[in-house]
Amino acid sequence: MNFTEQYNEYLTAVEGALAAAAEEMTFSPSILGESMRYSLLAGGKRFRPVLFYAALHALGYDYLKEKELAAALECVHTYSLIHDDLPAMDNDDFRRGKPSNHKVFGEANAILAGDALLSLAFALCFRAAERGESHLLAAKRLCDACGPNGMIAGQSADLLWSGKRGGAEELFFIYENKTGRLISAPVEMAAILAGGDVGAGTAFGKNLGILFQLTDDILDEKGAAERMGKTLGKDKLEEKLTCVRVFGMEASEKLADEYAEKCLCALKAFSPEREFLEGIVLLARNRDH
Amino acid sequence: MNFTEQYNEYLTAVEGALAAAAEEMTFSPSILGESMRYSLLAGGKRFRPVLFYAALHALGYDYLKEKELAAALECVHTYSLIHDDLPAMDNDDFRRGKPSNHKVFGEANAILAGDALLSLAFALCFRAAERGESHLLAAKRLCDACGPNGMIAGQSADLLWSGKRGGAEELFFIYENKTGRLISAPVEMAAILAGGDVGAGTAFGKNLGILFQLTDDILDEKGAAERMGKTLGKDKLEEKLTCVRVFGMEASEKLADEYAEKCLCALKAFSPEREFLEGIVLLARNRDH
Repeated sequence: MNFTEQYNEYLTAVEGALAAAAEEMTFSPSILGESMRYSLLAGGKRFRPVLFYAALHALGYDYLKEKELAAALECVHTYSLIHDDLPAMDNDDFRRGKPSNHKVFGEANAILAGDALLSLAFALCFRAAERGESHLLAAKRLCDACGPNGMIAGQSADLLWSGKRGGAEELFFIYENKTGRLISAPVEMAAILAGGDVGAGTAFGKNLGILFQLTDDILDEKGAAERMGKTLGKDKLEEKLTCVRVFGMEASEKLADEYAEKCLCALKAFSPEREFLEGIVLLARNRDH
Repeated sequence: MNFTEQYNEYLTAVEGALAAAAEEMTFSPSILGESMRYSLLAGGKRFRPVLFYAALHALGYDYLKEKELAAALECVHTYSLIHDDLPAMDNDDFRRGKPSNHKVFGEANAILAGDALLSLAFALCFRAAERGESHLLAAKRLCDACGPNGMIAGQSADLLWSGKRGGAEELFFIYENKTGRLISAPVEMAAILAGGDVGAGTAFGKNLGILFQLTDDILDEKGAAERMGKTLGKDKLEEKLTCVRVFGMEASEKLADEYAEKCLCALKAFSPEREFLEGIVLLARNRDH
């Protein structure tokens, strides 16, 4: 099976896990479930749960058993996108090629849809946690990654440093937290569940998260609105702290290469079975959306 | 010890639990921790965690051992207030006698502070869940109560029915979910932890939640802005679906009496030790803020 075939196999499993979670969303009032499904089932790369499945698979673990935690990862990611897109935050009208949640359902419903997806993520985590100690620890790891010592710290720093003269230190704080923690978490969770080396997972995941955000900034600058499915060039407009602003384009591309190398290096300690994960690194480096 | 002395004893323990949770909020950027502490440590009745401690105590359980879950209850409540007060939601400038979170920190930071308090609540829940099966179940109960099948469903219905011709059915849906679930949860959690009758706890808590929201609507209509610490008369202005609008003031007062009676009745099946909880019912009925 080549990389794309394998990616699609994981992706299909992820979509199945999300469909199962969405099936339970027969909430009243119906607009609540609709707005949650609108954003959760909008497709996309599903990078975080695919990475989770791939890391489990690499460690010889039957990844199909972990539907709840896979869906929880995407619920957390989707909630963060809905809140990020709000007018008071990044004020983005498009996401995944469609009007953002608040453009369709209004701001109030979008705030609630985000809150609801975060709550649902934890409900899925608790369901997983009932299966035993290592599941509880994996769920806890996700909780820590997306909380005020993780993703939200990064979002807060991103707000704080917009339009200000931040440097490399502030930039990397944002990278490691806003994007990095939720990309590192799936690898760490996989290591916890499969009895792998959690430290090696963190090293790989952390570098992969930074690489992912480096290429995000580069793509935003280069502009490829259609393929990215969101408004581009916005970072510059809003004077966001990006690698291109701090280092320039050429140095940013070089930095991305360095982080891709760091990822490949860290992978060696994570698993002997690493062909697909190496492909993930190359994808994160070379993606055009 | 009379009722007020006992309430204050629980309240002191709750404030201790919150202070312990807040001590860990040395988040970077500092504005994130500041905005979380601003709302979480703003005082108030602490009705939900006090109820949790009182229900545990009534069942003969050492309530001081449950700091995490007590703090988690108040974190969830506080997050819901911060998001409820946002301009896109209830647009309230005051809360607990102080400017609301977004008036002090701006909308973007207020959205993040709410997200962060919800995430922190679950981090506290997972910490509790590590103590064993019944703690995991209690934490799960809180998660279900505040999610899209609970509190958020009520908030969504509240939005949906503002300015429309809803009746008793819609009103009670909002009552049971928006307010009721997070008032029922502490009693149910106490029953789970102390090996009490969870069904009896639900019956008591559900009626208490409805009673609490009935008196909230009555107080909003009567107006006592200073004592309530928030903008009053807003429900009418925004054509919120309230008991006073559906039934009129006199019938609403009578309904509150009936629900107080239902609570007292349900309490009998919950615990033989019920003097303080009966006092809680009277407080919910006769409060002036």
